[in-house]
Amino acid sequence: MKMGTIYGVGLGPGDPDLMSVKADRLLRNARHVAYFRKSGHTGQARKIVNGMIPGDAVEFPMEYPVTTEIPVTDPRYNELLAEFYEDCTRRLKDLSDRGEDVVVLCEGDPFFYGSFMHLYSRLRESAPVEVVPAITGMSGAWTATGDPITWGDDVLTVLVGTLPEEVLVARMAQTDALVVMKIGRNIDKVKRALRASGLFDRAWLVEYAQMPDQTVTRLSDAGDKITPYFSIIIVHGQGRRP
Amino acid sequence: MKMGTIYGVGLGPGDPDLMSVKADRLLRNARHVAYFRKSGHTGQARKIVNGMIPGDAVEFPMEYPVTTEIPVTDPRYNELLAEFYEDCTRRLKDLSDRGEDVVVLCEGDPFFYGSFMHLYSRLRESAPVEVVPAITGMSGAWTATGDPITWGDDVLTVLVGTLPEEVLVARMAQTDALVVMKIGRNIDKVKRALRASGLFDRAWLVEYAQMPDQTVTRLSDAGDKITPYFSIIIVHGQGRRP
Ligand SMILES: C[S@@+](CC[C@H](N)C(=O)[O-])C[C@H]1O[C@@H](n2cnc3c(N)ncnc32)[C@H](O)[C@@H]1O
Ligand SMILES: C[S@@+](CC[C@H](N)C(=O)[O-])C[C@H]1O[C@@H](n2cnc3c(N)ncnc32)[C@H](O)[C@@H]1O
Repeated sequence: MKMGTIYGVGLGPGDPDLMSVKADRLLRNARHVAYFRKSGHTGQARKIVNGMIPGDAVEFPMEYPVTTEIPVTDPRYNELLAEFYEDCTRRLKDLSDRGEDVVVLCEGDPFFYGSFMHLYSRLRESAPVEVVPAITGMSGAWTATGDPITWGDDVLTVLVGTLPEEVLVARMAQTDALVVMKIGRNIDKVKRALRASGLFDRAWLVEYAQMPDQTVTRLSDAGDKITPYFSIIIVHGQGRRP
Repeated sequence: MKMGTIYGVGLGPGDPDLMSVKADRLLRNARHVAYFRKSGHTGQARKIVNGMIPGDAVEFPMEYPVTTEIPVTDPRYNELLAEFYEDCTRRLKDLSDRGEDVVVLCEGDPFFYGSFMHLYSRLRESAPVEVVPAITGMSGAWTATGDPITWGDDVLTVLVGTLPEEVLVARMAQTDALVVMKIGRNIDKVKRALRASGLFDRAWLVEYAQMPDQTVTRLSDAGDKITPYFSIIIVHGQGRRP
């Protein structure tokens, strides 16, 4: 029997209108739809496709193990996650072995800091896997600011808020254009680094880019609020422009 | 009379199936379609939409002035380009004033090193302009390599091949994951910089990502060939992965 294909389908930043024609088609014809979520939550990826997937599609929510009590640096954290990914992999592989195609929902572009990569690297040798690229959250975010991110010879650096403060400062100080992802509880550290590197006054905070709750604020006007998981900081390049 | 909207529509890397649902709809209903091209060439953006735009749509090819005899550093180069962009801007504004919507075709994502930005910055105060984000060429390229670009805390740096060699080396030496765009005649310089920074053996060359002529080669296997304009170099990050 022919094995089913596991599609890692990038959904883009959140507006269904910004999904690719291919993603749209795969979703509307899906028989099995898998997605990550925190236990007790709908999951952002699942929310984005609300109303798009066939009523009789079988859903496979992959629930992250609760890890809040274990620090990321503890080896047990990694072990727990690895077990979780192994388990998801087995279940997807089972479907593929039975000849079933599966659509795995991915926020943004699957190969850009995406969780699907952890399944992909485990599945690629033993099952047909196909990745459908998508508009990244950062493209959604800079478009929302109404200003281009890079001009001419601009260097673009993409950082994650989980990096140590001194690394953030050093990288920020050297770039023309900047994107910071995975901010959340790291917002104060990221702000200090932006101040230290002289970028703070040019920084924009975009929450929920291209989603119904989108906000675009100068970081200096954002006050002390906690930013949601779906937040990106943008500093626009100022390169050569005829 | 209501002014027409000028849409800067990102087409993604090249496969029409990877266009957004929104771009697809705008194209299939377009009455005016503008795009950049070199004199005597079809233009890549126009090629991508072949067969998609209505037969009675009015096409407006915006032909770059011939600049091959003027070095980029010569002020006349910038003047010529500025005049050209002013002229295109006037013609798009005219259409908008007459109530006509115009779709401007953009390769990849319009706000990411795109030529449309030069029209956008001139039009935005005087006409309704809307930018439709898209899958970047680099997302198309890393997806084509079959390996994720960034994991965990990886830093991603995007460089253009037009930068001075010492800048390339310094930036390459410090990043986890790397994208180099605008390679073309700068390929030898880019290769030397990759060698000097220790990234050469991990570098991939992707030509025409997600287009019919796509090639994916280890740079070390690419020999001395001249790379086309639509080439991207990719070095994958190797960050934390449970
Ligand atoms: C695990 S990464 C996944 C990135 C995703 N694969 C992409 O291509 O954008 C999660 C981070 O992406 C960013 N993000 C993704 N989509 C976003 C959106 N629509 N608005 C704001 N931030 C977004 C946030 O910084 C978030 O912390
Ligand atoms: C002026 S920049 C435009 C970038 C575009 N706005 C984007 O989002 O990818 C042109 C450069 O983009 C890169 N590029 C864009 N699309 C590509 C593709 N499909 N394959 C390879 N390179 C591409 C090449 O490096 C090229 O020199």
